[in-house]
Amino acid sequence: MYVTNPHFDDANPDVLYHFGMSTLSHDFVKLFGDLKFVCCGGSAKRMEKIANMFMKEFCPSSSTAAVNICQSDRYVMFKVGPVLCVNHGMGMPSMSIMLHELFKLLRHAKCKDIMVFRIGTSGGIGIPPGTIVVTEQAYNALLEPKFTTECVGKLVSYPTTLDKELCDELCQVAAAMDLPAIKAKTAGTNDFYEGQGRLDGALCCYKETDKMAFLEQAKNLGIRNFEMEAPAFAAMTRRAGIKAAVVCVTLLDRLEGDQVLSALSVLKGYEERPCQLLTAFIKKRLLQQNGVDHHCVNGGGC
Amino acid sequence: MYVTNPHFDDANPDVLYHFGMSTLSHDFVKLFGDLKFVCCGGSAKRMEKIANMFMKEFCPSSSTAAVNICQSDRYVMFKVGPVLCVNHGMGMPSMSIMLHELFKLLRHAKCKDIMVFRIGTSGGIGIPPGTIVVTEQAYNALLEPKFTTECVGKLVSYPTTLDKELCDELCQVAAAMDLPAIKAKTAGTNDFYEGQGRLDGALCCYKETDKMAFLEQAKNLGIRNFEMEAPAFAAMTRRAGIKAAVVCVTLLDRLEGDQVLSALSVLKGYEERPCQLLTAFIKKRLLQQNGVDHHCVNGGGC
Repeated sequence: MYVTNPHFDDANPDVLYHFGMSTLSHDFVKLFGDLKFVCCGGSAKRMEKIANMFMKEFCPSSSTAAVNICQSDRYVMFKVGPVLCVNHGMGMPSMSIMLHELFKLLRHAKCKDIMVFRIGTSGGIGIPPGTIVVTEQAYNALLEPKFTTECVGKLVSYPTTLDKELCDELCQVAAAMDLPAIKAKTAGTNDFYEGQGRLDGALCCYKETDKMAFLEQAKNLGIRNFEMEAPAFAAMTRRAGIKAAVVCVTLLDRLEGDQVLSALSVLKGYEERPCQLLTAFIKKRLLQQNGVDHHCVNGGGC
Repeated sequence: MYVTNPHFDDANPDVLYHFGMSTLSHDFVKLFGDLKFVCCGGSAKRMEKIANMFMKEFCPSSSTAAVNICQSDRYVMFKVGPVLCVNHGMGMPSMSIMLHELFKLLRHAKCKDIMVFRIGTSGGIGIPPGTIVVTEQAYNALLEPKFTTECVGKLVSYPTTLDKELCDELCQVAAAMDLPAIKAKTAGTNDFYEGQGRLDGALCCYKETDKMAFLEQAKNLGIRNFEMEAPAFAAMTRRAGIKAAVVCVTLLDRLEGDQVLSALSVLKGYEERPCQLLTAFIKKRLLQQNGVDHHCVNGGGC
């Protein structure tokens, strides 16, 4: 479960180097055995903020703030009852390290029926800023529906479709909350500037007509937002047999421009939307699973 | 200078979104005009530590700690006299965003004769842990001497040789300090586990014989360490016309194993070596340029 590496042996000591954790020093079953949901995103501060929002919702009797339990400074991690919040930095290589170690953590902890969510911000394509895009399939920076990476010196590609039922359920929850949300394709790139056809980077190797042709091609494929992690996230969670979803809000419409120019207060409002949606979704699921509302099942981590 | 994008116009307002800076709110010439050196690395905390080490060396009269001047939580940035310390996160996509915005910052500030250094940790190939590798040329995860990325939907490749004189001078300074350092090739990958042929990730799509063949191939090419940023760093600094160097210490010998198992105190000692080398190099250069030792030229940022 979660770990498909045939060389992995549960009996061997294992160091999760970038989390600063080890099977020799950490009792994973005790620390993480009751997890049901993992919420990840790029920014460390946003993950802390979300963890404290979850704390109010799922552990209302707790008076303390969420505490970072990572023993290294590469990532931050907060446990709030059945929810783990962890950041993954920016880009697929940074996220890939986190996911490898997260999957091993879940295996060591003997967790069951885990769902993993990536929440974040993105650039929209032909949709109003503030729209939540729930990804049905991730596309790479060449606008192909797959994740291609280098594995021991060779190129390998993996499928990038995400769980259809989970995607639909998230859109239904958003609709019930009057949050603007659509199901669409998402392109994840390895560069924010040239990779997404921006004209405002330090380096730019193409013309404005190339940029607009690229954005039109993406739009015609049904891609409605650009970010930098969805292909690896979709491919790796699929390989690990985990139900997963990508929920990103758009901060601008790339057909209108390249720079993020909205007022900070407006952007902050947009950024909260994926968290609001995920909070409502988890509340709904906890109610279904446990017949209780709003609070931890066993208090672990609250 | 530093910005080769033909669409860039110095007269237009410019938002450095991931630094939380803008030409409308920041006087770049006043804030950064006296910079001569940029030191970057993955970890935010290590950059803060290095900034405080530089503070003692280059601003000995200052009694305050280095202050993070980034207005967003994506990166941290510290200015210590003529040295800027900034983290880039893990992996080439995260570093690429930082470099685009750094090059624009240097252009807005009208800086001249800048040198940029990446310092970090790495996995060695056939060399003792604790060895500093100064990169002469970066290889990608397919063990090719180039950086390949996606630009507006198309694959493009760039050369990855680094400044030979700077590389040699760093090795000479290290030798004079009795620091173990070699000039060699460095492979930068997009995944820490499968990308570098590890057998201890959550996912693994190859056999041990494939791993050893991959490491032997790298060794035979003259590659002496693996990390996750060198190809993009070498290619992007070259495109911007900036002298640059990659200085990484090895924490283990990958021919001996995959996990980083040395005692924390030993690892901390290794991690300090690139900082020690860079401090000595900058001191030497400041002495040559200004005829002064140890202290800021104009106090900016101290």
